Amino acid sequence: MIYITRRERFNAAHRLFKPNFSDEKNMEIFGKCSNPNWHGHNYDLFITVKGEVNPETGFLVNLKTLSKIIREKIIEKIDHKNINLEVDFMQNKMASTENLSIAIWNELEPYINKLNCKLHCVKVYESENNFVEYFG
Amino acid sequence: MIYITRRERFNAAHRLFKPNFSDEKNMEIFGKCSNPNWHGHNYDLFITVKGEVNPETGFLVNLKTLSKIIREKIIEKIDHKNINLEVDFMQNKMASTENLSIAIWNELEPYINKLNCKLHCVKVYESENNFVEYFG
Amino acid sequence: MIYITRRERFNAAHRLFKPNFSDEKNMEIFGKCSNPNWHGHNYDLFITVKGEVNPETGFLVNLKTLSKIIREKIIEKIDHKNINLEVDFMQNKMASTENLSIAIWNELEPYINKLNCKLHCVKVYESENNFVEYFG
Amino acid sequence: MIYITRRERFNAAHRLFKPNFSDEKNMEIFGKCSNPNWHGHNYDLFITVKGEVNPETGFLVNLKTLSKIIREKIIEKIDHKNINLEVDFMQNKMASTENLSIAIWNELEPYINKLNCKLHCVKVYESENNFVEYFG
Amino acid sequence: MIYITRRERFNAAHRLFKPNFSDEKNMEIFGKCSNPNWHGHNYDLFITVKGEVNPETGFLVNLKTLSKIIREKIIEKIDHKNINLEVDFMQNKMASTENLSIAIWNELEPYINKLNCKLHCVKVYESENNFVEYFG
Amino acid sequence: MIYITRRERFNAAHRLFKPNFSDEKNMEIFGKCSNPNWHGHNYDLFITVKGEVNPETGFLVNLKTLSKIIREKIIEKIDHKNINLEVDFMQNKMASTENLSIAIWNELEPYINKLNCKLHCVKVYESENNFVEYFG
Repeated sequence: MIYITRRERFNAAHRLFKPNFSDEKNMEIFGKCSNPNWHGHNYDLFITVKGEVNPETGFLVNLKTLSKIIREKIIEKIDHKNINLEVDFMQNKMASTENLSIAIWNELEPYINKLNCKLHCVKVYESENNFVEYFG
Repeated sequence: MIYITRRERFNAAHRLFKPNFSDEKNMEIFGKCSNPNWHGHNYDLFITVKGEVNPETGFLVNLKTLSKIIREKIIEKIDHKNINLEVDFMQNKMASTENLSIAIWNELEPYINKLNCKLHCVKVYESENNFVEYFG
Repeated sequence: MIYITRRERFNAAHRLFKPNFSDEKNMEIFGKCSNPNWHGHNYDLFITVKGEVNPETGFLVNLKTLSKIIREKIIEKIDHKNINLEVDFMQNKMASTENLSIAIWNELEPYINKLNCKLHCVKVYESENNFVEYFG
Repeated sequence: MIYITRRERFNAAHRLFKPNFSDEKNMEIFGKCSNPNWHGHNYDLFITVKGEVNPETGFLVNLKTLSKIIREKIIEKIDHKNINLEVDFMQNKMASTENLSIAIWNELEPYINKLNCKLHCVKVYESENNFVEYFG
Repeated sequence: MIYITRRERFNAAHRLFKPNFSDEKNMEIFGKCSNPNWHGHNYDLFITVKGEVNPETGFLVNLKTLSKIIREKIIEKIDHKNINLEVDFMQNKMASTENLSIAIWNELEPYINKLNCKLHCVKVYESENNFVEYFG
Repeated sequence: MIYITRRERFNAAHRLFKPNFSDEKNMEIFGKCSNPNWHGHNYDLFITVKGEVNPETGFLVNLKTLSKIIREKIIEKIDHKNINLEVDFMQNKMASTENLSIAIWNELEPYINKLNCKLHCVKVYESENNFVEYFG
């Protein structure tokens, strides 16, 4: 069993808030992350897959294939977008890094299962000081 | 003459567009940075000042003082904000990293002039691949 | 189950030595880290907690709360301090990164248990080339 | 149980190809990594070992000893070398990061077993976007 | 006057040697960098241009245009290549980082002059410890 | 004219204080940096030299020679040391990053002048947020 990780990046706007709360109550719970006019981040996304090395190629998985899946299923939908308003797999969810990591897992897993490996970890850096890991 | 640099960070949403252009025309010129629903970044801000070392303290400037000025005059106004809508020193300006660097210079210079040093450079990283420097 | 990590930083002086050894014997075993006049580091501290996402907030834990605990219980006691002489939770211990990681775990765990999550890992970088992880 | 990691670095040339394939077929499968004239990387190698802290020294393992083993057994054989042509432990293997990680594990494990710890992970960064982890 | 920098990256093999010297003499002068079987690096390339901000767009230069020029004129010719054997603008030159920086300047300057800005600096990182800057 | 930079690193303890002030007065002026029991840092040192490329070697200067000078004249004297008590070139000086940069310049310049280049810049990072540059 071996593990390989691919990093991709995206920039997006988001806001943490509950629509049935007032702006004041959202500010109390979510602080400046609840700003109604949005804020944003440069997100770093690390996708780790695991499996056996193919003795023919020396690869667990062709990283070009893995990168293409991540870009098509995640990056194209979220890069330079508003996570709350425009990202289909985040609709009706709090736009937290935790929920984002779980949603990215759910989006990617079916496509990675078709490769000769399994999804092991989705890791999302929101800033140099904060990151979330989800293992399914 | 010696140069000292302080890094501060902020996260913000922005959009590159001209209000008198259609969304289509803005997309043509500014690409995905013109998204009407905003996107955002983790910005890194490097402020460099220059001057003579004070022989009493061994300091060019007390970094706590410099950091306090940057936080009060810039970070508190822009962190977790929408640059186009909420930042007073960016009103009526294209929210490009170039204009942001020049505006930050103009905001900081009067306060740094009151210290025993001069503002030398405002450097703004929009991403790990792009940054702007302004020397006044 | 999801994992979230917060980074905090501190600068400190320390020395690796056994008080019942001579300086020469300490130098033989601990090398230049045994310097009687101390040396120091910029330490990076990564605290990882794990648990379930709160469906109300989308958070595993409010990072402001987690950061506040780390700062109060660890950073305020160790930042700009001498680990051997001044840090209560390191008294009578070799000031190695291994012992530091274990002691930080022991300091933090009771407070993190009061949150809706469990402490998963304490990771301490002593330099860009060396780090220790402790999982309890 | 505690985990300590040492980073070492090496620069090397390599090529991904199967000698019984034509250059065209290698290009089809391995892309630009199959270039017959080689290309290269700055590799980052992270070696993690695990075990109990020695109460005498506060160390899991003396990092100078660990670093010396990694340098003698791996870095001196691969740094500024051609992985395909010159590295004994990579002969007759596809020079992929996956195979490199496994081979480094096999080279190091007997020597680390002689210390008071066990090899836990070999992690090899080929670039800032790609890395492999092997846990034996 | 404002300065904007774009980072691009490439991986390449090279060798430092003079063809009229023996391998032994090359080793004496160039050390392990003279290895006849090549070695390689992940190079980081920072291109800085300078000029006036266009008041219409807020841009000094459209970074997509700048990136496209760097990719077409430099990256496509050098990425995953052997600098000594395959890169037209490095033929008959010692493949040092110094010469590489000067050659990249000479390749890029005519194309950047056609934009509304001037080339200011070519900066090439060969490793995290070594980099070269050329200002023309 | 071309510029080449070499990074070296050192870890050291220091304290900012004036011996004729009380600990209280030192704390008022220098804050927690005045702690009588010392604190410390991982310092990053960047030495930039400038000159003409030697057409024989393609080098401005042999980096092994430059690195050897920096290590002999600076790193061996300051690494794992107490800057205030043990570093000859910092005696009777406030141990600020500003004074450290100037003292390193004065130590290195005579030796770099004997090479075929000139010292251009001494840059010292005290932390990821603070650095000083001195150009002579």
